Amino acid sequence: MQKNVLIECHQRIAPFIHETPIFTSHLLNGIAGTELFFKCENFQRMGAYKMRGATNAILQLTEGQRAKGVVTHSSGNFAQALSLAAKSLGVKAYIVMPSSAPQVKKDAVKGYSGTIIECVPTLAARNAMAREIQSKTGATFIHPSNDLNVIAGQGTACMELLREQPDLDVVVVPVGGGGLIAGTALAAHHFGTHCKVVGAEPFEVDDAYRSLKSGKIESNDTTNTIADGLKTQLGDKSFPLIQKYVEGIVRVGEDEIIEAMKLVWERMKIIIEPSSAVAFAAVLRKKNRFIDKKVGIIISGGNVDLKNLPF
Amino acid sequence: MQKNVLIECHQRIAPFIHETPIFTSHLLNGIAGTELFFKCENFQRMGAYKMRGATNAILQLTEGQRAKGVVTHSSGNFAQALSLAAKSLGVKAYIVMPSSAPQVKKDAVKGYSGTIIECVPTLAARNAMAREIQSKTGATFIHPSNDLNVIAGQGTACMELLREQPDLDVVVVPVGGGGLIAGTALAAHHFGTHCKVVGAEPFEVDDAYRSLKSGKIESNDTTNTIADGLKTQLGDKSFPLIQKYVEGIVRVGEDEIIEAMKLVWERMKIIIEPSSAVAFAAVLRKKNRFIDKKVGIIISGGNVDLKNLPF
Repeated sequence: MQKNVLIECHQRIAPFIHETPIFTSHLLNGIAGTELFFKCENFQRMGAYKMRGATNAILQLTEGQRAKGVVTHSSGNFAQALSLAAKSLGVKAYIVMPSSAPQVKKDAVKGYSGTIIECVPTLAARNAMAREIQSKTGATFIHPSNDLNVIAGQGTACMELLREQPDLDVVVVPVGGGGLIAGTALAAHHFGTHCKVVGAEPFEVDDAYRSLKSGKIESNDTTNTIADGLKTQLGDKSFPLIQKYVEGIVRVGEDEIIEAMKLVWERMKIIIEPSSAVAFAAVLRKKNRFIDKKVGIIISGGNVDLKNLPF
Repeated sequence: MQKNVLIECHQRIAPFIHETPIFTSHLLNGIAGTELFFKCENFQRMGAYKMRGATNAILQLTEGQRAKGVVTHSSGNFAQALSLAAKSLGVKAYIVMPSSAPQVKKDAVKGYSGTIIECVPTLAARNAMAREIQSKTGATFIHPSNDLNVIAGQGTACMELLREQPDLDVVVVPVGGGGLIAGTALAAHHFGTHCKVVGAEPFEVDDAYRSLKSGKIESNDTTNTIADGLKTQLGDKSFPLIQKYVEGIVRVGEDEIIEAMKLVWERMKIIIEPSSAVAFAAVLRKKNRFIDKKVGIIISGGNVDLKNLPF
């Protein structure tokens, strides 16, 4: 993907997203032994960076396509992001969700005027249901991560970070479906002076780590992690970009994720979701790798259930 | 207090404090029916506005006084603020705390290098102990709220808010010992174009509300509120300023405080303590009073025990 694709993407979505602040903390710098720059996408509209990619994907549709709506399958932040982005642009959004999805997530999608279609909680069922919606309504399917327009949109967070801090040595991002890290890697490649990108992943769902080792897209047998945004696997659009541009993946334990999340909540006074804490946990785990460097961290989102905290 | 006292105070403390950001939220504006500007002192050093007043009070001491240290009695944010301000300025801080104070608060003071002296948990005992420290060490006593240097320092948060938003109609602040509201009222008087100040207090500790009614400083028989920073009563320095410059006090219930706190956590993704939520709860309770106005809210702090949340 060329540099101008990212520049045009950022201009296209700018009216519909927040330019989120970059936070720093002397105290956390001291703990990590690095200079940290937290790009706070928890303050993004609907509380996560996914608003960027969803907005870009819809804006790339023709008028005729927009009139027929968009469809995705997600029970997480992308469901909310596509609903809100669609609402902002006057487009109908169909969200295929497993019937087992928590009520709080269904309510959030409804709050952004998304139309929920429930299906049985299997990958096959949700793909089939999404196809059915497509053929019934003519809506365009937008994948939560494995879509180049989505990937470009997610990369704009790192573009903004590098505009403010052009000489970052490295940006650390959590890896789920790979949309964020692929977009971030493209942004770092085009807009950094020497900026590396490192992914962060729970040991419990280390499919990206194993995929980079084996050279093919691996999946997870179990998904026993608190970082519920990172359970998905890479796709054929994101994986080649990750192979080409990402330096490596650091894996972290569940206790480390919770400890990193608690540190950010207590010391920075901001609410971040467990998936976001994975990136900071990786910096704390591999101190020697990041010591004395200028390190960007994408705080991917802040959507948590306050009734179900790990502290 | 003259305008230039506040201006000089702000210049004096500026190198030692953060200029905190002002947050806005379309969603919360919609819920409140007003335009809200949250001055985020939860992002202040040590997590609360009290850093401002503590710093100003120490900076007003002579070299000779500073060499002998400072002493206060507090189990809350002022204990931490005085400890950190003293540490930043190379001054010794003695903190008289009731033996019953939670370990987490003692640890925080120790973390900022404050010297804790425990006493039995009565007002008489802590006053006696503070006097004993004064006579033993020559340290200067600094009251957490009833001190004009402290009051001026606390007023600088509102000065910064009005510099960014000069035409605010009203600023709403929580009322405990009265240092914050007295300083805010002075700042609004000198730097606002037409800015009123309204206090917010839990029904459970409505001493300031009753004091304004009766014309004398009232105390609380019980202190059964989640807003643990607001249990103290006004003093002879803060009360006259409040009488002169504050428009009124809005009282709120405990459920309203928790609901306001939850709204800010969930929607703004920032961590605020219950005492801070009292001000937003007051705006939600008295919607007609604030509707269509430009309303500043001082988010006083973000120090909470994550193991003991009200949600």
